[in-house]
Amino acid sequence: MRKKIDVSIMINIAILGFGIVGSGTYDLTVENAASIEKKVGVPVRVKKIVDILDFSKHPARDLITKNFDDVKNDPEISIVVETIGGTRVAYEFTKAALLAGKSVVTSNKALVSEHGLELTKIAKEKNVRYLFEASVGGGIPIIRPLKQCLAANEIEEIYGVLNGTTNYILTKMRDEGTSFADALKQAQDKGYAEKDPADDINGADAARKINILSWVAFGELVDYDKIERRGVGDITPNDIKKAKADGVVIKMVARAKRVDGKIVCSVAPQRVPLGSPFALVDGVQNAIIVRGNFVGEVMFYGPGAGGRATASAVMSDVIEIARNIVAHSKRA
Amino acid sequence: MRKKIDVSIMINIAILGFGIVGSGTYDLTVENAASIEKKVGVPVRVKKIVDILDFSKHPARDLITKNFDDVKNDPEISIVVETIGGTRVAYEFTKAALLAGKSVVTSNKALVSEHGLELTKIAKEKNVRYLFEASVGGGIPIIRPLKQCLAANEIEEIYGVLNGTTNYILTKMRDEGTSFADALKQAQDKGYAEKDPADDINGADAARKINILSWVAFGELVDYDKIERRGVGDITPNDIKKAKADGVVIKMVARAKRVDGKIVCSVAPQRVPLGSPFALVDGVQNAIIVRGNFVGEVMFYGPGAGGRATASAVMSDVIEIARNIVAHSKRA
Repeated sequence: MRKKIDVSIMINIAILGFGIVGSGTYDLTVENAASIEKKVGVPVRVKKIVDILDFSKHPARDLITKNFDDVKNDPEISIVVETIGGTRVAYEFTKAALLAGKSVVTSNKALVSEHGLELTKIAKEKNVRYLFEASVGGGIPIIRPLKQCLAANEIEEIYGVLNGTTNYILTKMRDEGTSFADALKQAQDKGYAEKDPADDINGADAARKINILSWVAFGELVDYDKIERRGVGDITPNDIKKAKADGVVIKMVARAKRVDGKIVCSVAPQRVPLGSPFALVDGVQNAIIVRGNFVGEVMFYGPGAGGRATASAVMSDVIEIARNIVAHSKRA
Repeated sequence: MRKKIDVSIMINIAILGFGIVGSGTYDLTVENAASIEKKVGVPVRVKKIVDILDFSKHPARDLITKNFDDVKNDPEISIVVETIGGTRVAYEFTKAALLAGKSVVTSNKALVSEHGLELTKIAKEKNVRYLFEASVGGGIPIIRPLKQCLAANEIEEIYGVLNGTTNYILTKMRDEGTSFADALKQAQDKGYAEKDPADDINGADAARKINILSWVAFGELVDYDKIERRGVGDITPNDIKKAKADGVVIKMVARAKRVDGKIVCSVAPQRVPLGSPFALVDGVQNAIIVRGNFVGEVMFYGPGAGGRATASAVMSDVIEIARNIVAHSKRA
């Protein structure tokens, strides 16, 4: 059972990992404190931040601890935001937080794709939540729309441009005729691509994201290793030129659909007709198209990464949980 | 207080008005019955349909009644779908249904724009819901995303192509060089425009929709008469040609934003740069762009009208209410 927490005063959250998304989330709770309090009914404040780096000069320095136990053992903290990334420490902390009766909100696509089933099961048993709107599409609302707004549909297919790095590279190659290597270098210089961009280039990042979308849409988490993946590393300026001449544009498309009753997920470069709004998804933008048997096709488009945009998605989950905690405490 | 209803067996709904959206909603409950039951936990079935026309040959003929009292006085019906349109009978029935302790879901933009405040207040007092996802943007999820997915943001601006009829006309004029009158005639022949298309052409339809979005985003329902409106009736093939030459496209844009602390809503033809995905919103498609202080700009795009698409939005509201009723009954 959920521990009794006095939410008549405020909702306390903790942030694990104070990188781009973690600090964006902290900034959001400060900048938008007033409007969030109005929506939730009580203030939502960050009580602790866990990170092993030195933040002794950061305005939030008094909240920072290197010890996760300070969060786990704090009965006042009801929601934990995990923005550590990876599947080792993040897995351990998430599991411990859920078992301690705290809800967890994450932007960690690798963890959700790999351990989402188990972590969701634990959350259910402990009567808390494990939410991951921010794990796909950065700031674009897509998990909740799939669960709720399109709930009346039988989903037939989901496809999208889910990796900003490769989309930036393909856009550069098309607009400026640069080689793949040069475009990648520019993406790294601008901070869009990581030093080791392998997971972006080979499609692993997009595969994890389509895996999560497919799980939400079809209720089945496909084995990640079974996702067909073809990266963009071998696309030449010549391929791009030929596409232009054919009136199409090359996009790395992640796709999930039901084929003969089985869910099939894939990631591969594809030729998209120029007349489609999907073709105009340029640079680090993401877009996700959902086809349902009643709604037809709807597209969700926006910033697929970035600290502030992703924090918007993280905090939408936090607000949902906070509203429920407040409603529950009123009924009790 | 909500009447005790035995939801361990099923959720019963009624549909008021059996036109395009009403019959689309009925079809959805039949075609997707199994997946909806799985999501809600119990079956959701249409128990009664109110319409004054003759449907004696329709498969659903046994459910049809001309008398709204059959719905109002049926304690088994917990959710009423209002797809009558207009603000006279629809207002009367909605109010009576709410006062009888039933939740109401609607696609009726005129009613929400005109009486939304009062009806929402009544719903709150009776501990039921008044939801209107389908009143803006047809099948595109936009009301719930504004309320929930983007709740962490302070919304700075919302703008969109919200009227399919005028967008179809402007698209025809651009692609085929037709006159406004000819394009309108084609829209009417295809069933996209009504016999009396005045409310589409003069911007009244789009004004009601932006009024509703503005209410949800900013928490304030602007007086409809204060919305600046400029229609598309005086746009000439020459204007379109000039726009083409300038590398822009003319769209009828509805807009809501905060100016000096006040909410300002407007509808007017505007020139949109060709490079924006917004410029590619063609034909009867709709698109809505929301700018929040953390997420930046996100776009929601899809079918802005049509019976099946709009039914998807209607039923997303029904499913939300049904899930809450089932959860509430479990706790009780």
